[in-house]
Amino acid sequence: MSESIRALKERMAEIGHLGRIAGVLEWDLQTYMPPGGAAARSEQIALISRMTHEMFTAEETGDLLAKAEAEAASLDGDSDEARMVRNLRRSFDRAVKIPTSLAAEFARQTTLSQEIWARARAESDFAAFAPSLERNLELVRQIVSHLGYENDPYDALLDQYEKGMKTAEVSAIFETLKPHLIDLTRAIAERAGSGDEPITGHFPIADQNALTSRLAADLGYDYTRGRQDQAPHPFCINFSRDDVRITTRFKEDEWMMGVYATLHETGHALYEQGSPAEYENTALAGGVSSGVHESQSRLWENLVGRSRAYCIYLLPRLQEAFPEAFSGVTVDRLYRSVNRVRPSFIRVEADEVTYNLHILLRFELERELLSGRLRVADLPAVWNARMEEYLGITPPDDRRGVLQDIHWSAGLVGYFPTYTLGNLLAAQLWDTAQRAIPDLEAHIERGEFAPLLEWLRANVHAYGSKFEPNEVIRKATGAPLSSEHFTRYLQTKFGALYGLA
Amino acid sequence: MSESIRALKERMAEIGHLGRIAGVLEWDLQTYMPPGGAAARSEQIALISRMTHEMFTAEETGDLLAKAEAEAASLDGDSDEARMVRNLRRSFDRAVKIPTSLAAEFARQTTLSQEIWARARAESDFAAFAPSLERNLELVRQIVSHLGYENDPYDALLDQYEKGMKTAEVSAIFETLKPHLIDLTRAIAERAGSGDEPITGHFPIADQNALTSRLAADLGYDYTRGRQDQAPHPFCINFSRDDVRITTRFKEDEWMMGVYATLHETGHALYEQGSPAEYENTALAGGVSSGVHESQSRLWENLVGRSRAYCIYLLPRLQEAFPEAFSGVTVDRLYRSVNRVRPSFIRVEADEVTYNLHILLRFELERELLSGRLRVADLPAVWNARMEEYLGITPPDDRRGVLQDIHWSAGLVGYFPTYTLGNLLAAQLWDTAQRAIPDLEAHIERGEFAPLLEWLRANVHAYGSKFEPNEVIRKATGAPLSSEHFTRYLQTKFGALYGLA
Repeated sequence: MSESIRALKERMAEIGHLGRIAGVLEWDLQTYMPPGGAAARSEQIALISRMTHEMFTAEETGDLLAKAEAEAASLDGDSDEARMVRNLRRSFDRAVKIPTSLAAEFARQTTLSQEIWARARAESDFAAFAPSLERNLELVRQIVSHLGYENDPYDALLDQYEKGMKTAEVSAIFETLKPHLIDLTRAIAERAGSGDEPITGHFPIADQNALTSRLAADLGYDYTRGRQDQAPHPFCINFSRDDVRITTRFKEDEWMMGVYATLHETGHALYEQGSPAEYENTALAGGVSSGVHESQSRLWENLVGRSRAYCIYLLPRLQEAFPEAFSGVTVDRLYRSVNRVRPSFIRVEADEVTYNLHILLRFELERELLSGRLRVADLPAVWNARMEEYLGITPPDDRRGVLQDIHWSAGLVGYFPTYTLGNLLAAQLWDTAQRAIPDLEAHIERGEFAPLLEWLRANVHAYGSKFEPNEVIRKATGAPLSSEHFTRYLQTKFGALYGLA
Repeated sequence: MSESIRALKERMAEIGHLGRIAGVLEWDLQTYMPPGGAAARSEQIALISRMTHEMFTAEETGDLLAKAEAEAASLDGDSDEARMVRNLRRSFDRAVKIPTSLAAEFARQTTLSQEIWARARAESDFAAFAPSLERNLELVRQIVSHLGYENDPYDALLDQYEKGMKTAEVSAIFETLKPHLIDLTRAIAERAGSGDEPITGHFPIADQNALTSRLAADLGYDYTRGRQDQAPHPFCINFSRDDVRITTRFKEDEWMMGVYATLHETGHALYEQGSPAEYENTALAGGVSSGVHESQSRLWENLVGRSRAYCIYLLPRLQEAFPEAFSGVTVDRLYRSVNRVRPSFIRVEADEVTYNLHILLRFELERELLSGRLRVADLPAVWNARMEEYLGITPPDDRRGVLQDIHWSAGLVGYFPTYTLGNLLAAQLWDTAQRAIPDLEAHIERGEFAPLLEWLRANVHAYGSKFEPNEVIRKATGAPLSSEHFTRYLQTKFGALYGLA
């Protein structure tokens, strides 16, 4: 490796460490930090963010990058070094547009805002959160104006999470999906009472914790390089490929949330644990985009976790953990109950059919908030009206409405659509994997998840973030992203479940 | 406040944040980090240490400090600003002597060394730890040679933890204590079988956790600004005065370790939680030295926690938590059992009489290691021989011998003596507090710890680290540090307990 590429890698490794350090501060904030720690924590996170930004955007980085580019020009364009330099150029050009003071202020503000949101949500008090959200949006608008855009200010945000994706493309996808989803939801509603009622009972949290730990381990999650904790909002975070952590949350009177949140976060974690060791501490490490990440979590949560085959594997484990609730439950009963389709208030607990309508609602509202067409004060009313329009239900309070998600408090605007992109890609990957792996369903029934994990390792994880999301999709599935796999999957699965024509 | 003092304070606040960030990384490493995280964590800690050191020793800090000194010259020498500048000058002059590369290497090496030590201890395999310890000592010697010293290389290390304390003073204290402690230990051994046997039983960890949380809260530990977790080595760490955490460890078949480790760490935590809010993020915040810190932990653990009055408070709580083991136990029986004096292998579980002999042994050995008179390879044998000489017992393995403490793996050489200084000061503070607080013992019997905590807040905590340790001792007790209070306390208490002349 050339001297200038080596020097650039060294500098980037340090900048990477700073990012991971901020991650540890964030993980602690979400899991164990006592309330008193919030003020100092926001200063600590702001400082690390500022230092990271300063170090990345420093002239020295630019010089190293320019030298490395000159050398990489003679390399194969698809070599690790050439791609690394290309990826860095893109992030560097983007980062230098943001003043360091704004990056630090954004980090400090959104850390505090998450605390304010958590309290406001607990008390279902939107007014307590509104000023903080207003300020977050102001800063997001400043970031957008620094980044610039061609057609739509939202493009500048979306691109942070899904490199190369345009707002117009997302809109087009939703235009295609929306009528399908609304029609399917309505058709299923007419078939209500199809034996899909939730399996109820008492599910002690310690037992859920033990069960979900085992489920994650069975999928292939390596606990010597990870751990599971409880947090108000399930998430996955990593501080190296060998320290990839997930969080989940449990309710005593409900078992599905804990199990499916665990499968979801395990999907993210498997992707990060599968990042190539040789990419560690470089711009090639880790998942490539939020959408591709979400394809991994949704694939394990839904395509695997809500399949009949998985129910065959899962049922005896549920019966062992919660004998009272699950004795006498059949595979068919379990399969129907985990695939119950009903309009509901909470996105993360929504079924596969209605889920993307929750995303559409957020995609629309955040574009309207960003442009100023929608005022923060009017947000709860508009949220509720839109819920009525798309799902036919009105949240009884803001806790189950506009306050349910952490994203806007964390300054994440432009992130939500990647959930839907992930759902589409999960179905597309699933179709490809089914063709590639003989007897995939039989493996799953027997709790053998290694064939699928190995396929994903080879066809998605192994690329780290070396290629563009679009390239990864094409390499893995042989085609560009399409919503057809997903809509066909929904039609087939739920058509059969609910006896639709 | 003048402009240059304000600018200095701002810079020091950032440097302080970096220190706290390193603390979060350390806390996580000790409590929750999966094994795979170790390698990246050592890089992260090394990076933060390097940045902290670079930022503190930068020319810019020196310039700000010089300007602030010029302005502080006109202030009252005991004003907060004057003291802050004076304290910073001292740490700055010290820090600039250490090359940044050495500071970072020391941080990286000792982080990895702690992992190696933990595995070696678990397997009682000193040979597995020896090369790492050797390297730690090499780096410590380099640090000493950069820092310089007048009489004894150990002075340079001791001064890091106990500002102004000299090795010769510590030696003199041990010369006085040693015969007392050895005689007292022997005299008590002759009275063995005095009804001081441990109270045995089965003590589920969840119940110990609940009990000790309550005990800490009763002492005044504020859980909105702290939390208790489990770790292999109990410690207290803080990320602000409003986020002060303790860890403890439990054994299922033993209740004393968990309870007394909690009281000990709570003592440290109360000191940090009591640091004046207006000193936050300045060189005046937090405990002044390891010795004064240890006086707080030992005062709560021993002078309070092992008093007859505390046993009156504690017994019903133990009976509630562990009815089987404690039914029929009297206050006298409890009091005798928590004050059982017997030579034992593990320092942190040692009684008040033998404890300082454990420290003396470490003080001697680390001076010999530092000078090279003692080779690492010979350490286990010399440790065991010295245990036999001072305590009349020989550790059956290195886990219960030379591998028991984390300190040397963490690069902490020169720290151990501060435990004994803390014991002496605890007794001296206790004598003073008893004169100052009417009915102190009656308060403790009733679980009213506020009078003592308030006295400590006013007479120790309120000073933060503004004054020198010696000044704090004099302000709080009206006299310099003396070992008389401690030896008299031991003679009186254990003379009565064991019926000595």
